[in-house]
Amino acid sequence: MSMNSFGHLFRVTTWGESHGPALGATVDGCPPGVVIDEAMIQHWLDKRKPGQNKFTTQRREPDQVKILSGVFEGQTTGTPVQLMIENTDQRSKDYGDIMDKFRPGHADITYWQKYGIRDYRGGGRSSARETASRVAAGGLAREAIRQIAPNVQITGYMTQIGPHKIDRKNFDWSQIEENPFWTPDAQAADDWAAYLDDLRKSGNSVGAVVEVVARGVPAGLGAPVYAKLDTDLAAAMMSINAVKGVEIGEGMAAAELTGEANADEIFMGQNGPQYSSNHAGGILGGISTGQDIVVRFAVKPTSSILTTRKTITKSGEETEIITKGRHDPCVGIRAVPVGEAMMACVILDHLLLHRGQIGENRGRIG
Amino acid sequence: MSMNSFGHLFRVTTWGESHGPALGATVDGCPPGVVIDEAMIQHWLDKRKPGQNKFTTQRREPDQVKILSGVFEGQTTGTPVQLMIENTDQRSKDYGDIMDKFRPGHADITYWQKYGIRDYRGGGRSSARETASRVAAGGLAREAIRQIAPNVQITGYMTQIGPHKIDRKNFDWSQIEENPFWTPDAQAADDWAAYLDDLRKSGNSVGAVVEVVARGVPAGLGAPVYAKLDTDLAAAMMSINAVKGVEIGEGMAAAELTGEANADEIFMGQNGPQYSSNHAGGILGGISTGQDIVVRFAVKPTSSILTTRKTITKSGEETEIITKGRHDPCVGIRAVPVGEAMMACVILDHLLLHRGQIGENRGRIG
Amino acid sequence: MSMNSFGHLFRVTTWGESHGPALGATVDGCPPGVVIDEAMIQHWLDKRKPGQNKFTTQRREPDQVKILSGVFEGQTTGTPVQLMIENTDQRSKDYGDIMDKFRPGHADITYWQKYGIRDYRGGGRSSARETASRVAAGGLAREAIRQIAPNVQITGYMTQIGPHKIDRKNFDWSQIEENPFWTPDAQAADDWAAYLDDLRKSGNSVGAVVEVVARGVPAGLGAPVYAKLDTDLAAAMMSINAVKGVEIGEGMAAAELTGEANADEIFMGQNGPQYSSNHAGGILGGISTGQDIVVRFAVKPTSSILTTRKTITKSGEETEIITKGRHDPCVGIRAVPVGEAMMACVILDHLLLHRGQIGENRGRIG
Amino acid sequence: MSMNSFGHLFRVTTWGESHGPALGATVDGCPPGVVIDEAMIQHWLDKRKPGQNKFTTQRREPDQVKILSGVFEGQTTGTPVQLMIENTDQRSKDYGDIMDKFRPGHADITYWQKYGIRDYRGGGRSSARETASRVAAGGLAREAIRQIAPNVQITGYMTQIGPHKIDRKNFDWSQIEENPFWTPDAQAADDWAAYLDDLRKSGNSVGAVVEVVARGVPAGLGAPVYAKLDTDLAAAMMSINAVKGVEIGEGMAAAELTGEANADEIFMGQNGPQYSSNHAGGILGGISTGQDIVVRFAVKPTSSILTTRKTITKSGEETEIITKGRHDPCVGIRAVPVGEAMMACVILDHLLLHRGQIGENRGRIG
Repeated sequence: MSMNSFGHLFRVTTWGESHGPALGATVDGCPPGVVIDEAMIQHWLDKRKPGQNKFTTQRREPDQVKILSGVFEGQTTGTPVQLMIENTDQRSKDYGDIMDKFRPGHADITYWQKYGIRDYRGGGRSSARETASRVAAGGLAREAIRQIAPNVQITGYMTQIGPHKIDRKNFDWSQIEENPFWTPDAQAADDWAAYLDDLRKSGNSVGAVVEVVARGVPAGLGAPVYAKLDTDLAAAMMSINAVKGVEIGEGMAAAELTGEANADEIFMGQNGPQYSSNHAGGILGGISTGQDIVVRFAVKPTSSILTTRKTITKSGEETEIITKGRHDPCVGIRAVPVGEAMMACVILDHLLLHRGQIGENRGRIG
Repeated sequence: MSMNSFGHLFRVTTWGESHGPALGATVDGCPPGVVIDEAMIQHWLDKRKPGQNKFTTQRREPDQVKILSGVFEGQTTGTPVQLMIENTDQRSKDYGDIMDKFRPGHADITYWQKYGIRDYRGGGRSSARETASRVAAGGLAREAIRQIAPNVQITGYMTQIGPHKIDRKNFDWSQIEENPFWTPDAQAADDWAAYLDDLRKSGNSVGAVVEVVARGVPAGLGAPVYAKLDTDLAAAMMSINAVKGVEIGEGMAAAELTGEANADEIFMGQNGPQYSSNHAGGILGGISTGQDIVVRFAVKPTSSILTTRKTITKSGEETEIITKGRHDPCVGIRAVPVGEAMMACVILDHLLLHRGQIGENRGRIG
Repeated sequence: MSMNSFGHLFRVTTWGESHGPALGATVDGCPPGVVIDEAMIQHWLDKRKPGQNKFTTQRREPDQVKILSGVFEGQTTGTPVQLMIENTDQRSKDYGDIMDKFRPGHADITYWQKYGIRDYRGGGRSSARETASRVAAGGLAREAIRQIAPNVQITGYMTQIGPHKIDRKNFDWSQIEENPFWTPDAQAADDWAAYLDDLRKSGNSVGAVVEVVARGVPAGLGAPVYAKLDTDLAAAMMSINAVKGVEIGEGMAAAELTGEANADEIFMGQNGPQYSSNHAGGILGGISTGQDIVVRFAVKPTSSILTTRKTITKSGEETEIITKGRHDPCVGIRAVPVGEAMMACVILDHLLLHRGQIGENRGRIG
Repeated sequence: MSMNSFGHLFRVTTWGESHGPALGATVDGCPPGVVIDEAMIQHWLDKRKPGQNKFTTQRREPDQVKILSGVFEGQTTGTPVQLMIENTDQRSKDYGDIMDKFRPGHADITYWQKYGIRDYRGGGRSSARETASRVAAGGLAREAIRQIAPNVQITGYMTQIGPHKIDRKNFDWSQIEENPFWTPDAQAADDWAAYLDDLRKSGNSVGAVVEVVARGVPAGLGAPVYAKLDTDLAAAMMSINAVKGVEIGEGMAAAELTGEANADEIFMGQNGPQYSSNHAGGILGGISTGQDIVVRFAVKPTSSILTTRKTITKSGEETEIITKGRHDPCVGIRAVPVGEAMMACVILDHLLLHRGQIGENRGRIG
């Protein structure tokens, strides 16, 4: 019942603060024999790394991962894998003002109220830097999935920045790697660039929506009530910093559908059931159908902005705050690889859970 | 790592199928000395009970709860509380057709694919009847909360049926108990009645949005990463049958806000911090602020409808199905007490977790 | 993190008090397709049932198990199995004296100090009646094991009553079912009968040692640190009422051995490694070797005896107590099927855990 | 359900191999505000450190702990504490012979059979070096206990080496720190020194018994069935490398007692109940009585000895092995601080669990 862990069998515990010596992920339950090295994990951390373009924070962290345990001669041993990232770029001089004042929209005030002590430097444990640990764990999860269910492909992308949504008619998987927003709509990428540029100059920030799709996931993953695949995905995504909403398939829009419109009809294909549509987002009764698993989540705008906001101090005095420093106009962008990592961890966990309870025997159709 | 359990310290395991002898909840970790009897739990089950008006299924289940353990002389003893509901109205003759065919939008096909066996009678374990167990557990959780944090008030209500949303200007807490939809907007209640009447006659169904608010929750509940209050609430709500999206505070709409608009400014009130707004839904960094906790979830339309839909059989033949029987035109209505129950369980669990790790000492402001 | 649960994937939560309406076990994570009915579980409960001979309590409980969920058409469905035993023989008139006085050696005083409330009737939750739930769960576990690892055989027997140990030279598996003590030493059975007869007449009681062996367990079950097979077995056995010591293989006597004497030498057999001896009790580094798993535990004497003992009341007054009623001169006898049940649950759990993390691929030798 | 974790609320996950870059403990759930620094933890690691006298391995590891997270300005923050120990003295040249051969009595063969891969250098994950992580976590636990229950004192000592037991009449707490065996019997210390000297010279090894006592533990810690205090202690001790038996209070000897002899009579003292004796080892019904908690465990002899033993290779060929290198003639000695650390972790965990479920209100006596 660890508070900083997630997963049932593939269990990830993240640790570390934004400005401490290091942060990382302790990963337990990884299958043995997974081929892995630091470079394979680094690949995903580099994707998340800040400072790669003008739309993300200019803070520069090499975010270099070290594998401290659980890997021997290039393969996992089945024992805990410790993934550590040392913190190097810690400008602690920036944090004088927020030592005593609570930034609105930040966890400063709640950490203080709960714990009576907080590492105020860069948000400490509540910093989005924590998500680097998840991305590292997700990199390992991807390689383990490759071994067990090689057809699985996990891809995240942005579908909305502020009020601007992508046009689904423009959806092109091959565009995702071609723009700084990881969006499948090239036109949206151009529009967003102009929009965010203005926003950044004004010192403001904006929210976003990220969609993560897992293709090739076998039918049968998940279990009733609290090991439901959608339950675990909702928890995984909501646990990411700044996320305020999570959707599976139709999501909130399911409220507007009739039963007739919503029911994905079933046909018999060459390799098993086929569906006329995927309103369900690949999950029925908490168990995967074999269709694409589709998850979406909304990220609120960065609360660290260059506008003066009213707040209070630790001693209860009313005051104002303006958060200087290097921040993202849209943290949603960097949430894309984080969402992918969480999807990878959840899918792997359920592959193992399913194998544990059920083994290989399942209900055949046809 | 139970698949049918939720909660950390206040831990609920539900069991039972729609048409088996009984179903219920095994509740572990309840504090001792909570005054409780069957009538106090029955109150909440009666709220969820079908057949109370023409907008819910006409299936009649008395849903009578029995306390089998953990209560002595009218108080909890601190040992597991077993809450059992016997199934009485089981028309098994209705289920001939669905024995071999998979109903689109139902868990029939995924349970079969996963387990290779399924109790097809009324959906078995995947039936919404399972939520009666949660409502019973929630009734107990409410009384335990009353003992620990007596100011907490938990209220659920509908904010949308199909495309029809409430008008927030009409919001009136006192209206919630006055209409069959538990909606705070009396005008919406009238409109929805007419709308649903038509829908029911046409044999169709529709989705809905339910909002659950917890008022009076103390600041400081929650913990980083995976015991975040919003993470646990998202999981709790997504685990309810037919839910496809979960939102905290602004939810998906947070994507459209700027940082300037989204940051709830902080002031000093008589009894601690006050906020200019509650975009955050009462949670910052996964920890409660003391403001109202606001959660919303979307329920998809009932998949059991009187329209013919294409599907396949267990042996892989293409066919059609029409689901007769007694079903809800809008299951979202009966999801209101279920959402309240999940909120109660999560809040109690976090009150206990917080007390366990922190005790009574917390950071004071002012 | 349920307090009344055990197991990782095959997870058993027991509930219920000695004199409440019922008690039972909520079993989550059982593989689907296990052939089971009430009679197959009843078989093991009957073995544990009191009143079968003069060496166990004369309290008569039919201990009739009912399966309330998770089984459909004679097979498990993979969803929670609820096993309920209704309490019928509740002579509550017996319990006037112990309502206010704490029986020495019993949990009366600690339950009171912890919870501030206790169901004093027959010990409530702390009664050895709770073990009936474990035996029921163990009966299910045995059938699930049969499906996954059909060569596993689990057998418990007594090796010591009071100061009287069996003579290992007399060890005969076929004798175990032939005497009321489930002991493999026929001579010991005779001696113990005379010894216990005297003890019973004097109103005294005595402790015992039970050994449980699992034969045919595949190599490779267990995992480092806290999912070690011996760790889980130690916890499983120590959690049984009145158990004060647990041993694996040589157990406490390992302290007296030299490294030379203790190291089981390894040879190559027809079907894999063979060992010159089994000091290790079938477990090395927390992982099974393929040899017999050997666990022993000591049960303290029944504390309910007909001798007057000094104690205090709830209000702190010194007094005396003599526990009338129907009790076992040696509860160790009835602990045999309980120990077997716990072994079955742990072995099954580890079969599932192993399959989950590792699948079928393992290190081959030769 | 982490395999390398223990504890419910104070949850420790250990990671790392004997000859990898580092090992450590990820500690989640520690209360905030605990005053701690590296030196306070180092104190306990130094106690466990090898090479301090001729009775322990001459391998020299500085075992220097680093706190990487969860501590800010000298106090815990309530977030995960990462305790890392870098490995420095790794003579990998020693391990050529054991790369392909399985050492009898070691986990070499079971790790291979389970995982199909093993870090053979120094035993990898199965090395007793893993216990350094536990000692570090225990050092933190001790400081947290000091804050919550300042009267608790945890002390471990040896009571037996090989066939030589201490004489309880010589028991003197003040002697424990005065000899290399941490034994309270000065005479035994002298005898053991001579005995072990001979053993060491002959290249043999021997087992031992360690006893750990927690004094000043409040009544009421523990909970039924699987959060029993004795259950968790049994698991904690059995999870330590080479432990083969665990006892609470009378332990295995409880089998020989009559009910009359075993029942600790209760009297009323100045500050609550007093007992005539402590056969129970401070635990009744799984819950602490307020008496001393007494746990004992047996450690088998080191399997790495200088005698030739028969074994097989990975390819199944029969061969012989002699384990050179620097090893302990009696690993039991260094198990003393490990047993203390496990006791500290379990006691703290139960203090938090109790506070979580019960708060401060408990049954008063008198």
